[in-house]
Amino acid sequence: MMASDSVHGEERIVAEFLAPLAAGFPGALGLEDDCALLTPAPGTQLVLKTDPVVAGLHFFADDDPADIGWKALAVNVSDLAAKGADPVAYLMALSLPQAPTRDWMARFAQGLGDAQAAFGIALAGGDTDRTPGHLAITITVIGSVSADSMVRRATASSGHVAYVSGTLGCAALGLRLRRDPVDADRLGLDKAAREAALSRYLRPQPRLGLRHALRSHAAAAMDLSDGLIKDLGRMCRASGVGAVVHADRMPVSTGVARMLSADPARIADVVAAGDDYEVLAAVPRDRAAAFEADARAAGVAVTAVGTFEDGQGVRLLDAAGHEIALSRAGWDHF
Amino acid sequence: MMASDSVHGEERIVAEFLAPLAAGFPGALGLEDDCALLTPAPGTQLVLKTDPVVAGLHFFADDDPADIGWKALAVNVSDLAAKGADPVAYLMALSLPQAPTRDWMARFAQGLGDAQAAFGIALAGGDTDRTPGHLAITITVIGSVSADSMVRRATASSGHVAYVSGTLGCAALGLRLRRDPVDADRLGLDKAAREAALSRYLRPQPRLGLRHALRSHAAAAMDLSDGLIKDLGRMCRASGVGAVVHADRMPVSTGVARMLSADPARIADVVAAGDDYEVLAAVPRDRAAAFEADARAAGVAVTAVGTFEDGQGVRLLDAAGHEIALSRAGWDHF
Repeated sequence: MMASDSVHGEERIVAEFLAPLAAGFPGALGLEDDCALLTPAPGTQLVLKTDPVVAGLHFFADDDPADIGWKALAVNVSDLAAKGADPVAYLMALSLPQAPTRDWMARFAQGLGDAQAAFGIALAGGDTDRTPGHLAITITVIGSVSADSMVRRATASSGHVAYVSGTLGCAALGLRLRRDPVDADRLGLDKAAREAALSRYLRPQPRLGLRHALRSHAAAAMDLSDGLIKDLGRMCRASGVGAVVHADRMPVSTGVARMLSADPARIADVVAAGDDYEVLAAVPRDRAAAFEADARAAGVAVTAVGTFEDGQGVRLLDAAGHEIALSRAGWDHF
Repeated sequence: MMASDSVHGEERIVAEFLAPLAAGFPGALGLEDDCALLTPAPGTQLVLKTDPVVAGLHFFADDDPADIGWKALAVNVSDLAAKGADPVAYLMALSLPQAPTRDWMARFAQGLGDAQAAFGIALAGGDTDRTPGHLAITITVIGSVSADSMVRRATASSGHVAYVSGTLGCAALGLRLRRDPVDADRLGLDKAAREAALSRYLRPQPRLGLRHALRSHAAAAMDLSDGLIKDLGRMCRASGVGAVVHADRMPVSTGVARMLSADPARIADVVAAGDDYEVLAAVPRDRAAAFEADARAAGVAVTAVGTFEDGQGVRLLDAAGHEIALSRAGWDHF
């Protein structure tokens, strides 16, 4: 990394690489003010979320900067999707351990820009700073919903069907392959399956297509970032109910299916590993068919994996109906 | 630090120490949802800002956790004050290098709570996470203004008077004393002057009292975080003007006045050092008297330190009208 290739000075980084990301949002004031200005549409409520990603924890410091930028925004927009909220704008605190190279900043901004275009959101403001620690990107997203239409977490009831979008465990497999590429050979994964898993880990896809179905039919929803069992447990606790889910109903990708047939115990990697960024929804039984139809129309796969029930806690059953004990119920940060 | 004294688990930290900070804000949903919900008052615009503080850069890891919490919120609310915005709520991403002790979390929450009460703002949501790096707290503040009343940065004009609130350089002196307590003896500072300087560094006071005067009379404003010369330079660049300021008009505390009489060259510490968190305002000459009267009524001292002029760049003049060359024009993070 040549010094002459580095971009020095907050102002230069902002003007050259970040201001273009804010060009589409008038309230960003060209990133030339201290604050951003947001004019809420009449009758709407704002949905707010902040989630940092840190090198060595949520991504690898030597990942493609475009993937890092994408992921930093995607993990936050995923929350908006699960709440049925429309993305509006985001703020970004970018903490860099050193002056970045021009190439690094250009790739990082490219990844953010691609994510912005994909999710329909723009940069409104933020802060660029040096850090004595690891590279960290803390994004705060702002979404909007019409009044009283945010889909909550604490409103699941006994009898509701537990749905998940997409597939589970694929990002965890991707992380495993990122750490140990040889694992792919052991599992007999071909190039396409390997790349699909890596891509799921590096470039999460917020399920924005599901917003309408969620707003119309779901009683409760949240995004899955710390593993189904742990996040479902959170929804259950917040709602004062329990849930039962079925291991053999988990939607999985081809690669994960191959992993499971090679080693069935890795079901733990499917239900208890993080980074899925799929949506978990509680849907009243009489709305299930309509929810599925709306999701299908939006091109997002949804799968009923279990049921909410009276009581507390989450039970995971195998195909024979026996409870599976999990040694580790999802990712805890402590 | 005994392990048995540590608080493990995000949920326990949130429920025990953070949820009480969100009790006064219904849209926080008890911190039991993924997102916060904000209902903007009709006819208002929202003012948004995010700014991280990181151990080893913005504070010392062994500072009183109550001071760390206060500062993390204060540096963000300071931006709202300078924009004439009323504090509404904040989100916090708390990245901890290890499970905190109960005492640490209790003190940290106490400092945040004291700051909340002082600034009239409440916790709306956030994220608690482990980090492989340093302790970092990234707060995003949300303020509100009636439509089109946010005081901007890029709207200073030639002829406007440059005002600063409070005193400059006191926090920089506090940082110096925090690093080298013996410096206080060299400068002949008594206990009261020492404590005042340290307190300015550890517990910045956002100038919320100035909001009305700013909204009523200021053409442009911003808060001072990286030193007067640098931040004034930013306002000048954004506004397409220059400015001249006078070293002998800088408002300083008793301790800083003593420092300057012991070593006049330390004027650089007054005009080019960070962490003041005072307000810089551009006020049209025919509004200056009214601005001063409103500020006085609000109990906030304001001092005219110079004038905006045609051209570009910031000139610092001594009492004889000679330009003072500064070796270092304020704090740059790269």
